[in-house]
Amino acid sequence: MEKKEKLKDKASIRFKMLKRKYAEMLNNALKESKVDKQLIPFLKKVNSLDKFFTASSCAGRIILLETTTSESKKESKFIFKKHGKVSFEEIFPKIRDFDAKDKYLWFKQEPFILHIGTDTLENAKKIITAMHKAGIKRGGIMVAQEGKYIIELLGTQSLSLLVKYKDFQICENCFRKQLQIANKKLERNYRRLKLFEKEFLKVS
Amino acid sequence: MEKKEKLKDKASIRFKMLKRKYAEMLNNALKESKVDKQLIPFLKKVNSLDKFFTASSCAGRIILLETTTSESKKESKFIFKKHGKVSFEEIFPKIRDFDAKDKYLWFKQEPFILHIGTDTLENAKKIITAMHKAGIKRGGIMVAQEGKYIIELLGTQSLSLLVKYKDFQICENCFRKQLQIANKKLERNYRRLKLFEKEFLKVS
Repeated sequence: MEKKEKLKDKASIRFKMLKRKYAEMLNNALKESKVDKQLIPFLKKVNSLDKFFTASSCAGRIILLETTTSESKKESKFIFKKHGKVSFEEIFPKIRDFDAKDKYLWFKQEPFILHIGTDTLENAKKIITAMHKAGIKRGGIMVAQEGKYIIELLGTQSLSLLVKYKDFQICENCFRKQLQIANKKLERNYRRLKLFEKEFLKVS
Repeated sequence: MEKKEKLKDKASIRFKMLKRKYAEMLNNALKESKVDKQLIPFLKKVNSLDKFFTASSCAGRIILLETTTSESKKESKFIFKKHGKVSFEEIFPKIRDFDAKDKYLWFKQEPFILHIGTDTLENAKKIITAMHKAGIKRGGIMVAQEGKYIIELLGTQSLSLLVKYKDFQICENCFRKQLQIANKKLERNYRRLKLFEKEFLKVS
């Protein structure tokens, strides 16, 4: 067998192993209800395709995040998390009741983040094409090995501010405004995600 | 000449043209003082290398941005912009004096964004390696054609909130806190950028 063909075989084996591994991870996450409900149909669709799979993804959400003052990710903790519209009544008490003696409390609206895997550069470029067609500006190929291409796509709708630390707490009026904006941005974020889903299924 | 060699030649010509074009754009931007001062040494260094060039990049900044309520980018306008630490005294009057009758006013601390171009997938992967070594989590290959690989790198330190709209204006106390955090995050952002510059020069 020629060297080139051997490499191709190796890449093909690598891709099959990866696809199996991520399918298993998705199945486990589904069993444990750890997947955003609105993303499930798209994730299932992608993983049913021969040449694609998904890795950890999120449709976008509104959160309250506790961190240390150095913001180390390991020590951060969700105080509130929802993949959808949030009312003042369901979130503000969480801020009011939070003990922020030596911790930061952040309010964030985070955009979608998708990770899609594929086997070749050619297929990776198809995802980039769909991304551009959907008007998504942030993203690219993060891992580029034959048999293992991982593409990350990131929404741009986001909001992030400090809401509590020591004797500082955001006032109700100001928080109401930020929440209103966050809900609006989240809606816009979901619309962009839907656009991408459509474009991706056209090229895949 | 074989087909493969012809393609290689074409890619090489494409890369040389691109490198020349971006060098010219950088020179013009330098003449018009449109480049972040702290990025200049790194941009010059990258562009002096045979196989790399830079496209539009920013070291990270603190801004006040005016937008329509639909946040169309075309109609947005900088009310304040600085690539460095900002004092309450230099920014708060801009908020106070802003007429927000039918416009949003945003306060944002934006992270660095770098665009580096190179000729081959192999060299693109070197940039990704430097990115990971510097602990940068967001970024990837955005354009992948032989002779034209563009890699985007994005910092993660950011803050973004609405500070004025109609009869809403953020209160002084709350804004002071956000500004303090923004300055801290910007400092952290610059440190990460320095790390990447070091790692990139090792692999390039």
